[in-house]
Amino acid sequence: MMQVVLLGSGNLATHLATVFSVNESIDLVQIYSRSIENALHLENLAPITNTIDNLIEADVFVIAVSDSAIQEVSQKLSAKNGLVVHTSGATCMEVINNDNCGVFYPLQSFTAGKDLTFENIPICIEAKQKKSFLLLESLAKSISKKVYAMNSEQRKQLHIAAVFVNNFVNYMYQIGEEICDANNVPFEVLLPIIKETAFKVSELTPKQSQTGPAKRKDKKTLALHEKELNESQRKIYRILSEGISNNY
Amino acid sequence: MMQVVLLGSGNLATHLATVFSVNESIDLVQIYSRSIENALHLENLAPITNTIDNLIEADVFVIAVSDSAIQEVSQKLSAKNGLVVHTSGATCMEVINNDNCGVFYPLQSFTAGKDLTFENIPICIEAKQKKSFLLLESLAKSISKKVYAMNSEQRKQLHIAAVFVNNFVNYMYQIGEEICDANNVPFEVLLPIIKETAFKVSELTPKQSQTGPAKRKDKKTLALHEKELNESQRKIYRILSEGISNNY
Repeated sequence: MMQVVLLGSGNLATHLATVFSVNESIDLVQIYSRSIENALHLENLAPITNTIDNLIEADVFVIAVSDSAIQEVSQKLSAKNGLVVHTSGATCMEVINNDNCGVFYPLQSFTAGKDLTFENIPICIEAKQKKSFLLLESLAKSISKKVYAMNSEQRKQLHIAAVFVNNFVNYMYQIGEEICDANNVPFEVLLPIIKETAFKVSELTPKQSQTGPAKRKDKKTLALHEKELNESQRKIYRILSEGISNNY
Repeated sequence: MMQVVLLGSGNLATHLATVFSVNESIDLVQIYSRSIENALHLENLAPITNTIDNLIEADVFVIAVSDSAIQEVSQKLSAKNGLVVHTSGATCMEVINNDNCGVFYPLQSFTAGKDLTFENIPICIEAKQKKSFLLLESLAKSISKKVYAMNSEQRKQLHIAAVFVNNFVNYMYQIGEEICDANNVPFEVLLPIIKETAFKVSELTPKQSQTGPAKRKDKKTLALHEKELNESQRKIYRILSEGISNNY
């Protein structure tokens, strides 16, 4: 069994603690949280501590804290022999000042209280040493079917792509809801097309899937729509329509 | 059985012909297409004709042609007694110059060759006369569990909202793919987060679901990301991040 220490008690740490603790090839030996209160919901999964000096040795130390705290936390692990990895998409491997370091980045949008099946979540891994890479790969493969080797530059770019397909997409949903609310149309009417749009890109490329007035360069409809929108919606409508039109 | 004549042979018409022809309460009595060749794939579903004057009487005439052709096609049906409806989100009911008129708008992104289960597709209906509304409602309910009464103004606004949650969302997927391609990252890594983002808004509102650097007003990450993008991506990144930040 691979011994794992988890550092953090937020959203991602909670999801990881849950999946690690039930996995047959993983022994979650300890959880560290700066504040014991924040980690109380994890105390049934593994012994918790708020003192880094109390951490025992392990095969892998998984740091799942906010990006800005990774370096500080990792420095306190410099005396450990185990592999030290962080879980951040936006952070390069080198912030961990330790020869035995790596990255274990699960690419998903984690929401508190919403269960996720980990086996379908892509895990992007990187390690400084070959043998650590193999260890990390085996950890990743024990919880997910989708494991990708990726260097820090690729991971950074992937994280930016995820801002577009997750954060910005969700913002499009927000604007859709605003328009519905303003016209007494239930937002649920949009849910099937939202799901279909998301599913379609599993079968067709996004470029093939594109439809709508901007792709058709249907200037009459574009002008009609702009007239109906408020100023901030209109700015977004215009810039995205231009972008689409330029692609076709 | 309700007798239905379908006018059109494009994407939507093909999907409608398929679902009408197998439905027990619907008798698809005829399909009209300006060009017989374009409708040959439908000839097993109902008799096809390219001559509007040859159309027989029916309970409902469903016009599923391009928006710009609706008026012309509907004028040729002025001698019919049956209810004449179009299927366009962006077109008001009144383009059909007939007292017995209405709208039957299935809100979905229809792709040629990709089967859809109609029962989950919202159908937005409107009719000038009360008795026609009831007829249209019964037609809609025979193929879908989600039928909404909606006037032309609401439908127009819903159609604009759909541009945001479908066309613009798909464009975000395109940009995500561009970034992946440029960095030798397979686009499939993004598919799980794309699906989760789409599913999440069934359980939380889009405003509750929002995450990311713009929501956190994390200026450091926003600046880092902008630096990595090309000019057109950066313009979009900036305007959408501003929009998100302003909401929180």
